[in-house]
Amino acid sequence: MSRLDYKQAGVDYSKIDPLKIQAQQAAASTARNLAVHGLTELAASRGESAYVVDCGDFYLASITECLGTKALVADATRQLTGKTYYDQIAQDTLAMAINDIITVGATPVSVHAYWAAGGSEWFHDAQRATDLVAGWKRACDLCSVSWGGGETPALSGVVEGGRIDLAASCIGLVRPKSRLTLGDRLAHGDAIVLLASSGIHANGVSLARKLAERLPEGFGARLPSGAMFGEALLVPTTLYSPLTEALARHGVVPHYCANITGHGWRKVMRHSADWTYRIHTLPEVPEVLQFLVKQTQSDAREAYGNLNMGAGFALFVDAHDAARTVEVAAQQGIKAWIAGVVEKGKKQVVIEPLSLTFAGDDLHVRA
Amino acid sequence: MSRLDYKQAGVDYSKIDPLKIQAQQAAASTARNLAVHGLTELAASRGESAYVVDCGDFYLASITECLGTKALVADATRQLTGKTYYDQIAQDTLAMAINDIITVGATPVSVHAYWAAGGSEWFHDAQRATDLVAGWKRACDLCSVSWGGGETPALSGVVEGGRIDLAASCIGLVRPKSRLTLGDRLAHGDAIVLLASSGIHANGVSLARKLAERLPEGFGARLPSGAMFGEALLVPTTLYSPLTEALARHGVVPHYCANITGHGWRKVMRHSADWTYRIHTLPEVPEVLQFLVKQTQSDAREAYGNLNMGAGFALFVDAHDAARTVEVAAQQGIKAWIAGVVEKGKKQVVIEPLSLTFAGDDLHVRA
Repeated sequence: MSRLDYKQAGVDYSKIDPLKIQAQQAAASTARNLAVHGLTELAASRGESAYVVDCGDFYLASITECLGTKALVADATRQLTGKTYYDQIAQDTLAMAINDIITVGATPVSVHAYWAAGGSEWFHDAQRATDLVAGWKRACDLCSVSWGGGETPALSGVVEGGRIDLAASCIGLVRPKSRLTLGDRLAHGDAIVLLASSGIHANGVSLARKLAERLPEGFGARLPSGAMFGEALLVPTTLYSPLTEALARHGVVPHYCANITGHGWRKVMRHSADWTYRIHTLPEVPEVLQFLVKQTQSDAREAYGNLNMGAGFALFVDAHDAARTVEVAAQQGIKAWIAGVVEKGKKQVVIEPLSLTFAGDDLHVRA
Repeated sequence: MSRLDYKQAGVDYSKIDPLKIQAQQAAASTARNLAVHGLTELAASRGESAYVVDCGDFYLASITECLGTKALVADATRQLTGKTYYDQIAQDTLAMAINDIITVGATPVSVHAYWAAGGSEWFHDAQRATDLVAGWKRACDLCSVSWGGGETPALSGVVEGGRIDLAASCIGLVRPKSRLTLGDRLAHGDAIVLLASSGIHANGVSLARKLAERLPEGFGARLPSGAMFGEALLVPTTLYSPLTEALARHGVVPHYCANITGHGWRKVMRHSADWTYRIHTLPEVPEVLQFLVKQTQSDAREAYGNLNMGAGFALFVDAHDAARTVEVAAQQGIKAWIAGVVEKGKKQVVIEPLSLTFAGDDLHVRA
């Protein structure tokens, strides 16, 4: 079997980015509209994972995020097992929004659901609908957020027949304001604490789908442990907000945070300034990612440059807080590693155990 | 040509509603999660057009809304004229969110864009992308909101190739809190002021598309005035927030508001309690809606029960504020009519000039 890469898998970032940059510039120019309302934005939040407005007593953060194509994996795996998995991908969808909004120091407060189906008949499958609702509610309860409402359009001709586009918007409060983490505190010597992922989360799914097309048993293929490939992909994304809230209660305010999603470990250097991120310890790689890397014949650069490879979230904390951060994570049932250190130097991620370096140019998420 | 109705046009509300009710009940049960954060929701906002949380000094409102299938009209009309119309449907998309959030008395503050395309190549059409960005920015500026960010996923296999799913989320502040309009002020004798729509807005579009399929010239058909059917459909939705903000500056606080979208004039009785809404004056019907009604052989019940028929938004105000409301609207360039009165009585909309009554049972938007 030949190699598979991202362009073959249908995601071509070089084509998305020009519009994204145009949109970011237009969006930034609308900031002045807030003055009418006696409000100001935190300009530094543009380009970060959530938008932040100063409301006087606290900051208000907001975000809208999409699941991507993981529903297609659920649909295909259901053909094999009869389970819908929509409870699990509901959690994935909320995780996309919640794990992003917490990066700025926000407590997620409320969410809206956006479920756009290919036609009214999508909603007629009672088991799938019940699972979607139950999983969405469970994830809200896990993160102590209120599910404020949502939109369930039937978009025949826009969304493919029998399919659904799942997205979530989230509002959060940064309160007290000292919890804000837009990156101005990041410093030489800070520890990089990586939090375990539960599996693929929702990034690299196009690649996994392409692989399934090539495997004789598709999503029914077996991992070495005996787990089914499709089911292993559908292990829901870890929700990190219970941990960031617990850290706040323990008095640990990260200096910066990065949600490890698209672009894999290149996201470790998400901060706008130039820092060198030196990694000395690697987290365990979930079996499903090991399988994906092996079967697609990806090298370490491709694997760590696109997949989370066991690290779902990065906390950059004062070196004195590192051990405590790992402890609090353990209390929340999340494995964590003191994996590296932030150093003065050019923008790069140096993964020493792999002799692998991502240069600053390898990440293009800002205008 | 035979009659066309909503089920033929692909929107079957009887199939969407059971999930919607299940979701609403699960969502309501998550309200208790706010207590952890020292917040409370306004339970009365559930079932209204935006969700409202009490933040102490002010209320925080939020909403996520979808354009629906109007992008398909833009795509088809572009084939005829070469214009993309994405600047216009950008405004429609924002109007869906903004015209909803203002119903609770909120000042819209910031929005996120959600543009989910069928593949990366969608974003490669520079004219269309530029128009989409420009129209989005212009609508933000018109409503004095900040465009905080967004998501531009490429969802091959979920969204149809060459298509895009446009949605918007919006955050608003109700400040001072006395601007809250969740309906507790609605009273016998209140005036019903209807605000002019600019055309079809974004509801009834499936019906219009179905009609275009049947017309020999499709979207290229001509209205009596000579306007092209497709272009007339694409006149962007009126943004009503400049008017609701102007009313607040003039000291007019509506007792209740209803955005006239799906379910047409049945939305006039959106309020949760039983009131009779007696309409004595009809707004002018935009030519494109006259054409749609005539060509689909819809009767008045179908037309007013599904389309805005010239009324894009309903303000329920103290009778003493009615004339002033119309005046302020005129200053904002929006035609308005003192169209009727709220009366004690069973839930119904009585449209006297048409001898037409919608009973309370005709509207099912609540759990």
